Order: sequence, then C-alpha cells, then structure tokens
Amino acid sequence: MRITTVGLDADDTLWHNETIFRLTQARFRDLMAEVAAPEVLDARLAAVERRNLSLYGYGVKGFTLSLIETAMELTGGEPPGRVIADILAAGREMLSHPVETLPGVDQALAELSETHRLVLITKGDLMHQEQKLAASGLGDLFAAVEIVSEKDASTYERVFARHGTGAAEAAMCGNSLRSDVLPALEAGAFAAHIPYAVTWAHELAEAPSDHARFAELASISDLPGWVRSLG
Amino acid sequence: MRITTVGLDADDTLWHNETIFRLTQARFRDLMAEVAAPEVLDARLAAVERRNLSLYGYGVKGFTLSLIETAMELTGGEPPGRVIADILAAGREMLSHPVETLPGVDQALAELSETHRLVLITKGDLMHQEQKLAASGLGDLFAAVEIVSEKDASTYERVFARHGTGAAEAAMCGNSLRSDVLPALEAGAFAAHIPYAVTWAHELAEAPSDHARFAELASISDLPGWVRSLG
Repeated sequence: MRITTVGLDADDTLWHNETIFRLTQARFRDLMAEVAAPEVLDARLAAVERRNLSLYGYGVKGFTLSLIETAMELTGGEPPGRVIADILAAGREMLSHPVETLPGVDQALAELSETHRLVLITKGDLMHQEQKLAASGLGDLFAAVEIVSEKDASTYERVFARHGTGAAEAAMCGNSLRSDVLPALEAGAFAAHIPYAVTWAHELAEAPSDHARFAELASISDLPGWVRSLG
Repeated sequence: MRITTVGLDADDTLWHNETIFRLTQARFRDLMAEVAAPEVLDARLAAVERRNLSLYGYGVKGFTLSLIETAMELTGGEPPGRVIADILAAGREMLSHPVETLPGVDQALAELSETHRLVLITKGDLMHQEQKLAASGLGDLFAAVEIVSEKDASTYERVFARHGTGAAEAAMCGNSLRSDVLPALEAGAFAAHIPYAVTWAHELAEAPSDHARFAELASISDLPGWVRSLG
C-alpha cells in the first residue's frame, strides 16, 4: 500500500469550531451595538487579531483577549463593566462548549483506522484541544496526536517522519487550504481539502489548480475511498 | 550506561519565569492599591486562578484573563479602563519578555547532551514555550521537546518511552516537586529537584524523605555529576 499514514486536522474538519467563534462574535456585536456598527467592529476585531497572532497564537484564550482589546479601542478605553464580564463569560463558554462531531466523521475514521495510521494534527490551545479530543470520543482511533503552534511544510515533514513512514507515504486532510493542504503538498504528502461552511479569513487561500497529489472532497465520507484510490 | 535520557523542565529550571509572574502581580497590586489591600488581592487572584485552572491551563494568557477577572470582582464589576489596559499590556510584555537562562544552564546542558539524550518537558502556552526555547539558544541541545497540558506519571511514562528507552532508564530534573519530581518517581524514573528562588503556591509539595532514586541539588551545575553517579 502506497499510503501508510493519514493526517487529520481537527477544528472544522472533525468537529464544529469556527461556527462557535462566529456565534461569539455575533454576541459581541449585540453587546457593542450602541458603540459600533457591526462592520466597523468586525474590521477592528480582525485587525486586533492579526496584530496579536504572533504573540497569542491560535485558540480561545487569545481570541478572548483580542475581544477585550477591541472593546477597549472602540470605547475610548472605558468599556462598560458588563461588556468585559460578558466577554469573559463568552470565552469560558467557548472553552466548555460541547464537542459536536461533523456528519460522517465517526464512520470515516473508524473505517480508515483499520487500514491506516491516523494522526491528528492541529493548532490551538494545547489543553483545550486535548479536552475536545477526549470529549469527541475519537481519541482511540488515533495512533498519535500532534498539537502544533504552526502548520508549515516542515511541520508535516517532522510529524509524518515521526509517526509514519514519511510525508511521501502520507495523506493530509483538512478544511484549510492554507494550513492543511498547501504546506502538506509542499512537504511531499498527498492532501485532500474538505471545505467547512465558514472559514476564518486568516485561513483563506487558493486551491491548487492542477496538482497530482491534491483532491477536493465534498465530505469526509469520501476520504476512505480517495485514500484507497491512491494505491 | 544506566541512564540514557534526561528530561528537563523549562520554566524556573532553565530560565526565569515565576519571577516575571510575581513582578506582574506586584504591578497589579499597585494598580489596584486604592481598591484592595495586597493580601486581599493576592488571595482573590489565587482563588480565581485555581477556579480557572482546568479551563485555562498554565501560561500567560490564562493568567492575564484571571487578572482581569480578579479586577472585575474587586471593583464590583466596574474596573477603571486604565486597569484593563494595564493588565492587557502586562500580559503582552510577559509574552515578549526576553528569556534569561539561569546560571550554569548552558554549560550543564552542553556537557550532558554529549552523553545523554535530552528531552524538554514543560507545561504552559504552546507557542510561548516554543518561542522561549528558540530565544534561549538551547534548542539544538534537545533531542525532543514535549509541551504537555499536565505532568503526571503517565505523561513521563509516555514521553520517556517515545523519546528514550523508558522511564526506568531516565532521569527528570526540575524545580517543582509536585510536577517534575513526584510523578517522575511514580513513573519509575530517577528525579532531581533543583529549587528556584520562588515557587507558585499551586506547585508546592513535600520532598520524598527517603527515596533511592531522588536527589536534591543546589544548582543545575550539579546535574551532570549526579547523572554520572547513577551508573
């Protein structure tokens, strides 16, 4: 068999994530309705998040801090106490939000795990990702879990060397072209893109127009068949 | 050789960390001087941190959120904007604080790395710990880096099995009896405690009074000699 190892992204590939961020952002818009128009608020938040990314990384805690910072900026440094309280509460709720796996995930992973080594490869808060994996009930299907601070070609080279037989015999699957697909292809792996309903602006990128090792799949249910088709 | 692998904690073992948290806490006391007596504030912050630990984990971002929450509680939910601004600034400064390695670290690790496999085993924010390791200049001395959400016996079993020849042939070294020493001993490894000037209350524990695989060292400079003495 040509492919020994399948890497899987977690957020928005195995379970809902961006939707939860969007709901929190909608709540933030309501909370700040008297202060800023929704599009002003969204633009400011995006700018604050971008500025903080190299310091905070990915995850709920950094997002919560960026929400507070945005509220500060839009209120001349004097946000009402209830705004801060509500942001802190929203952050805690995101961290304790139940994990909802996406349709078809359980079956696709159960099937794939019988023939391939599955490796979870995800960004985000270390503890939160471990908690979500435990809550998902999928943990036992994975041979290894790698929570990483950045997903670039060297990340995939390292992870597939450590937990598999190298990137050339691995396939990566995820909802982000920028984080899951392009760097995995660059590392020499196969890669499948499974779009999620919404994508964080930071993760947007263009699909490879013509690449022998790339596939666009409509659902994770198509993943086992695609992996089998690779040989 | 009996010991093949040496695990090293990072914060307050290789470089200053708790001191930076204490300085931020002192700044927070000054900032809140009109609102709460220092001991009231410290007690409230400790309670908030304890309550949030299972949700936020270890690291600067969770600490920053706990500072904001403490300020909320002590001001009846209406903290002055400058307090929030100063806490956010303090959090960012902690994340970008230069890394100061402790005396003797460079030489002890350089010496040990010639004969043993060194593994960094640390809690905290994933991205921040990676950045600190890079800034320390010590990265090349380590065969592996494991940033973990919790340090218990199973953590050490797993890490020493993955990156070494098992816990029985490994020695762990760190400043925390609770996180570095006791669970490593429980896993069957050797363990050395090197106290740091200050210890976070959460990390306090009692030293093993009589344990064949335990040593208390005054400085990391004593580590290579102790490891050699194990056989």
